[in-house]
Amino acid sequence: MKIEHFIAQSEGTWRSMRSGHSLAFQQFDNIISNIKIELLSTKDNEITSLLDYYSNLNSKPISPFRISWEADSDWGEQASETDLASGSSIFIPVPKSNSTGLMIRSLGYAERQKVICNYTLLPNDSLELITEYENSIAEEQIWFASKNVRCRSSIIRISGSSGILQTSFASEIRRMKGSAN
Amino acid sequence: MKIEHFIAQSEGTWRSMRSGHSLAFQQFDNIISNIKIELLSTKDNEITSLLDYYSNLNSKPISPFRISWEADSDWGEQASETDLASGSSIFIPVPKSNSTGLMIRSLGYAERQKVICNYTLLPNDSLELITEYENSIAEEQIWFASKNVRCRSSIIRISGSSGILQTSFASEIRRMKGSAN
Repeated sequence: MKIEHFIAQSEGTWRSMRSGHSLAFQQFDNIISNIKIELLSTKDNEITSLLDYYSNLNSKPISPFRISWEADSDWGEQASETDLASGSSIFIPVPKSNSTGLMIRSLGYAERQKVICNYTLLPNDSLELITEYENSIAEEQIWFASKNVRCRSSIIRISGSSGILQTSFASEIRRMKGSAN
Repeated sequence: MKIEHFIAQSEGTWRSMRSGHSLAFQQFDNIISNIKIELLSTKDNEITSLLDYYSNLNSKPISPFRISWEADSDWGEQASETDLASGSSIFIPVPKSNSTGLMIRSLGYAERQKVICNYTLLPNDSLELITEYENSIAEEQIWFASKNVRCRSSIIRISGSSGILQTSFASEIRRMKGSAN
């Protein structure tokens, strides 16, 4: 699988069940969100202005996309408690090889800032993203359990230490009629 | 990594935070348990009697171990509600190659019965277990996020369909003084 296939397969609307595990406090954090993944054009203004910021790229950006999310307000619990309850981020892959490359993100995952991460498509077709922030390193893995179920795990480490702050796991179900196939 | 190294690294007592996601009902199920993983001898009575049951093995069993678990009763919620709140299972690896083999389990994960599964140690050092039960197929992946943090994800599929019943994710923290390194 190439990155553009992985992204094409991800396009659509998803319902996400996400559990965060805070390891030091042994606390669970469950949230249900609606997620939309849409493909963009490399000519879109948002993309060109983000690319202007990163001028030293050695290869060609491809298959940019936007992820928007909104916590399900009917579901209660954490919804609207934090500024993470809704938002969107743009992603621009810049392949280095068939299976590796850089990924520009307009909004990071562990720290809310513009960031570049490294991606690798593993032999089992899961996508690994590693992002080094100022104070932490986020390792994310995303894979398709079936055509309509995507799984996503993450580990957030403290920079310069082997300590782990948090893990999380999300089951994302494509929004359509019928069962989760 | 070989299977015996993976098992040796797993030995000890762990505190597990586990989240189950029921996809059809979009329900979360969080539980904290204490887990003990102990190495056994291939000469132990429990091991030899389990091996007697599986007489057609083509290679030599190695590194058998027992996993015992008990839900944290102080923590409440699901503890003691089900017969899964505490229990133990014996595992006997029977390698076929450096990275693959069979694993005999005295008690299955998705269905509570004696079972043989297939294991594979993936290039990224995670251990994949695939177990075919009568009505379901369980795919589990276990990896070390650090020396003292193990992660475990599972997907339970309906046999003969692409439907997914449940996913789960556990963060297992080695029980010792200090932070989770």
